[in-house]
Amino acid sequence: MPELDKECGRRIYEIAERIFPINRSITGNGVRKTLRILKEYLPELTIHEVPSGTEVFDWTVPQEWNCEEAYIENEAGERIIDFKECNLHVLGYSLPMDEWMDWEELKKIVYTQPDQEEVIPYVTSYYEGRSGFCMSEKQKRQLDEKGGRYHAVIKSSLTAGSLTYGECVIPGESEQEIFVSTYVCHPSMANNECSGPALSVYLANLVKTMHRRYTYRFVFIPETIGSITYLSKNYRYLQDHMLAGFLLSCVGDDRTYSMVETRYGDTITDRLLRNVLHYVSPGYCHYTFLDRGSDERQYNAPGIDLPVCTFCRSKYGEYPEYHTSADDLNLVSPAGFRGSLEVMCRCIEVLEHNDKYQISVFCEPMLSKRKLQSSISQKGNYAQVMRLRNFIAYADGKNDLLRIAERIGESVYDLLPIVEELKACELI
Amino acid sequence: MPELDKECGRRIYEIAERIFPINRSITGNGVRKTLRILKEYLPELTIHEVPSGTEVFDWTVPQEWNCEEAYIENEAGERIIDFKECNLHVLGYSLPMDEWMDWEELKKIVYTQPDQEEVIPYVTSYYEGRSGFCMSEKQKRQLDEKGGRYHAVIKSSLTAGSLTYGECVIPGESEQEIFVSTYVCHPSMANNECSGPALSVYLANLVKTMHRRYTYRFVFIPETIGSITYLSKNYRYLQDHMLAGFLLSCVGDDRTYSMVETRYGDTITDRLLRNVLHYVSPGYCHYTFLDRGSDERQYNAPGIDLPVCTFCRSKYGEYPEYHTSADDLNLVSPAGFRGSLEVMCRCIEVLEHNDKYQISVFCEPMLSKRKLQSSISQKGNYAQVMRLRNFIAYADGKNDLLRIAERIGESVYDLLPIVEELKACELI
Amino acid sequence: MPELDKECGRRIYEIAERIFPINRSITGNGVRKTLRILKEYLPELTIHEVPSGTEVFDWTVPQEWNCEEAYIENEAGERIIDFKECNLHVLGYSLPMDEWMDWEELKKIVYTQPDQEEVIPYVTSYYEGRSGFCMSEKQKRQLDEKGGRYHAVIKSSLTAGSLTYGECVIPGESEQEIFVSTYVCHPSMANNECSGPALSVYLANLVKTMHRRYTYRFVFIPETIGSITYLSKNYRYLQDHMLAGFLLSCVGDDRTYSMVETRYGDTITDRLLRNVLHYVSPGYCHYTFLDRGSDERQYNAPGIDLPVCTFCRSKYGEYPEYHTSADDLNLVSPAGFRGSLEVMCRCIEVLEHNDKYQISVFCEPMLSKRKLQSSISQKGNYAQVMRLRNFIAYADGKNDLLRIAERIGESVYDLLPIVEELKACELI
Repeated sequence: MPELDKECGRRIYEIAERIFPINRSITGNGVRKTLRILKEYLPELTIHEVPSGTEVFDWTVPQEWNCEEAYIENEAGERIIDFKECNLHVLGYSLPMDEWMDWEELKKIVYTQPDQEEVIPYVTSYYEGRSGFCMSEKQKRQLDEKGGRYHAVIKSSLTAGSLTYGECVIPGESEQEIFVSTYVCHPSMANNECSGPALSVYLANLVKTMHRRYTYRFVFIPETIGSITYLSKNYRYLQDHMLAGFLLSCVGDDRTYSMVETRYGDTITDRLLRNVLHYVSPGYCHYTFLDRGSDERQYNAPGIDLPVCTFCRSKYGEYPEYHTSADDLNLVSPAGFRGSLEVMCRCIEVLEHNDKYQISVFCEPMLSKRKLQSSISQKGNYAQVMRLRNFIAYADGKNDLLRIAERIGESVYDLLPIVEELKACELI
Repeated sequence: MPELDKECGRRIYEIAERIFPINRSITGNGVRKTLRILKEYLPELTIHEVPSGTEVFDWTVPQEWNCEEAYIENEAGERIIDFKECNLHVLGYSLPMDEWMDWEELKKIVYTQPDQEEVIPYVTSYYEGRSGFCMSEKQKRQLDEKGGRYHAVIKSSLTAGSLTYGECVIPGESEQEIFVSTYVCHPSMANNECSGPALSVYLANLVKTMHRRYTYRFVFIPETIGSITYLSKNYRYLQDHMLAGFLLSCVGDDRTYSMVETRYGDTITDRLLRNVLHYVSPGYCHYTFLDRGSDERQYNAPGIDLPVCTFCRSKYGEYPEYHTSADDLNLVSPAGFRGSLEVMCRCIEVLEHNDKYQISVFCEPMLSKRKLQSSISQKGNYAQVMRLRNFIAYADGKNDLLRIAERIGESVYDLLPIVEELKACELI
Repeated sequence: MPELDKECGRRIYEIAERIFPINRSITGNGVRKTLRILKEYLPELTIHEVPSGTEVFDWTVPQEWNCEEAYIENEAGERIIDFKECNLHVLGYSLPMDEWMDWEELKKIVYTQPDQEEVIPYVTSYYEGRSGFCMSEKQKRQLDEKGGRYHAVIKSSLTAGSLTYGECVIPGESEQEIFVSTYVCHPSMANNECSGPALSVYLANLVKTMHRRYTYRFVFIPETIGSITYLSKNYRYLQDHMLAGFLLSCVGDDRTYSMVETRYGDTITDRLLRNVLHYVSPGYCHYTFLDRGSDERQYNAPGIDLPVCTFCRSKYGEYPEYHTSADDLNLVSPAGFRGSLEVMCRCIEVLEHNDKYQISVFCEPMLSKRKLQSSISQKGNYAQVMRLRNFIAYADGKNDLLRIAERIGESVYDLLPIVEELKACELI
């Protein structure tokens, strides 16, 4: 891969910043606007529309939702919450309403996060018609004391339209693919939304500049219904061509690294992420498929069975700001993005070289004649070449690069220079 | 299975109580009398006789032993021990004798349990002709001090006869069988004898009332020679038909639960008992085949290889009262029996449903339209449906119910309602 | 195997003592002289010569090196180091030289072990032409203070000649072989040189006296280039015939026992040494192939793949005296040799009997009629026969003796009497 730009973290951050304010949902103009911005960075991005009502496996593409305005006004005409200030204030997919109500009535459709008093929670009701508002538990308690009468207004529409997603294929020498999926359906949340698409477009541009043995496919889809829709059209092709796949979500903070395994935890992607993350960050958070929660659920579902792991910094659902208004642009950082980018670059470089290597001579090759070890033999001298010798010992044609790394207890990424060295000597 | 009767523990206890006083051995009228009483509860029980001298694998059915009387009388004509008071007082399979002896001579054929002073041990000599008595170590020491002359009388017979066992087959839709074995050869001991047959007849009656996919076979046999005899006639049929098998022994106390694995610990019965016992009683006692000691030795012998595990409360050999007069009706209890019955009922219910399930749709099914999860999406909402979702994730046609339970870390028994729910929705 | 002579340890020690003073290298007269002495003890030893320049896999047999004299003389004509006093003083394979030099110049070709001040290190430069001397770090520091001018003399020759090795084959009933390799290329070091050949000739003589199912092959070769040379001529035959192989190195001290696994740690030799060493010395040092360093590197190389483990007392590279003048005859002892001999004898006896055993009866055999267990049955009586019963349980035709030992948690060597007992009863 090309050397990383010193400013790469900041550049990714800026993309996230641009798409942050948009009100997205699983359908609607917010998704379209987001994809148009991403396309500015990645012109190869194609945008697809799937009509409402399309049957996708066990699901149906829902009607398209758009929301212009949503607020609660008191009798003094003051808006006590307003969608314009924070688009989490409206329950996702709310039906339109315009009604004066007593607080006691209104509060039945007000959602809060009782265990986190200060934040506005992110709540949706995609598949059952409801209207609703979200606010902080603190504000709700104040209103409980005050009572009164309020004007609840939602100017939204739910109409036949379509579900929108983006896709970008960067061809390589082979039709075998490395797959990257991220989602574009959450409103203004920074880590659990904007970080994934921002990193993905930056990574796609890097991939474009490198020599590619494999084809790379990036998809930008709404979560769940989007991945189901996408898979209903493409799963057979993906099953035939996918070498490894990554779901990128919550990749902008810099607290930890995490991965979620595939259903059986035994694919090349699992082995790759386990090794790379262990050596990048020995205490990284490892989750099995039992801890899943995002689109890896669909990619790994029975009958789909794609080798897709999720890669996060702090995993969705595991950090306090998750799915609240506190998941804002302060939570993500250039350093956080850069770390995620480095992990993905390491993964890609390893995949591009993950062959079964076989040493071309019987017994150990003579290293000193190739200047690969000292010609003086004295105790202590070998330690420096043990990594090289261990690589050679297990380069027996049975183990791919990942398996060699596992067997000899090394970072697979750090074996890449050895591969180059031995290729140069025609020893593999 | 049908709901358990509130009084089920007490009813089993009463059966144990009725057969407790009988003097049983590996042959003889005690076994016959016991089986006749069991047949009162389970009329389908058939009683089989195998003649003395029959060759059964490496063994020979021994002569039949019956004992009418056995006592030691002092010179004052007082019986210092009497078989009528406790049938453990006679060494099992004792030859007849009628002799006046000095204590120093007599004590050579008196058996005690030196590490447990108060109890009469249970000792036998089936395959070498001996006469002998058992008493408490305490009593023996008193006699050591006193000395004197004694009249040792055993009125027993060892004659050509037969070995007796009972069998009851309850047919199901399939000829594949679930097998339950228990033994009827110990004299008056409650947990390590009467508990097994008592539970077995109660369980057989329950099985009769339920819808049965599988056939159920209950055998009531003398230990070791009985199982060898039974297997010599039936092992090929059992090898072809047995799905899972249980040896019930020491199932009436309520101190703990135990299981003994099969020879390799990898059969469906092992997996079933491990899961069921772990969730019924997380600290249950798990024994490998190296700790075996009862008829699982024969069922699992090389060439026999049947999937039979032993299920106990306190395992034979592991509780202090084992094989002594202290294993009496105070050691077993209705609560103890009820617990064992519940475990067996859970095992049977799981076996009846232990299929490889396959979800009928691609990707995740839409749960909210089937009212299987809330239509409001907010963080924290999924925890409640994770068991259901996890079941679906591994219902990929590769895993039977037990394997799904192991993979998702759940009680297999608790997955049964999910199976019903998903069948009702035609999702599996 | 025959009973071990009480004096066996001392006899092996004496062989080591005889070959200790000789200056050996990977070629030359020191190797020849050593093999001639070993042949006095083992007349079947044949001596082979492979000409310099022969291509052996990735290597070439080097020119033959002989060294007559090597010393450093001060201006007073005193020899401050002299090869005659300790043959480690010359850098192995030094080119001839005869030069007066200032200390500052001379010290560039003087090797020491800086972390061990008192000892002369063992250093070589086989494959790059150099002249050099070795001395203690302490002496070097004194010379650093003193300075001065010195006469550095090495009377050596490096000429077309040959590489010499010895081999001894002791035929058995089968052409399948048990292989023992040791090396003869280090100058005066006791544990890491003389111990291996000394033990090997003693063991070979023992093997000659026993009934042999298998053929035994002992090789005495220079390390690395010798094993590569030997393998280049013999690897196909060895691949077809080797059942198990041992590299003997550092087998004369009595501090611990060690083994180095094969490349995948899964051969019969691995399983054998693991079991034997565990029961001889539960805290023995277990090394994986990642800790290799001697000829197991070649025997286990990709494409060679022979089941050769290394057996040591203190492993080469792991004890402080290793590759220094402190590895002298005080480091090895008759007790150390005897322990190693016992381990090798146990290994050989197990290999000679390591069949898959199958019990000849169905269900358990009746042990009491064969006097293999007591005919009185009372609790506690079985413990004594559990090893026998456990052996029988897993003698199902699937497990070799080693696997049975692993399964039942016993010393495989201690199962040999059971094998005899059961064979005598025709039960296996």
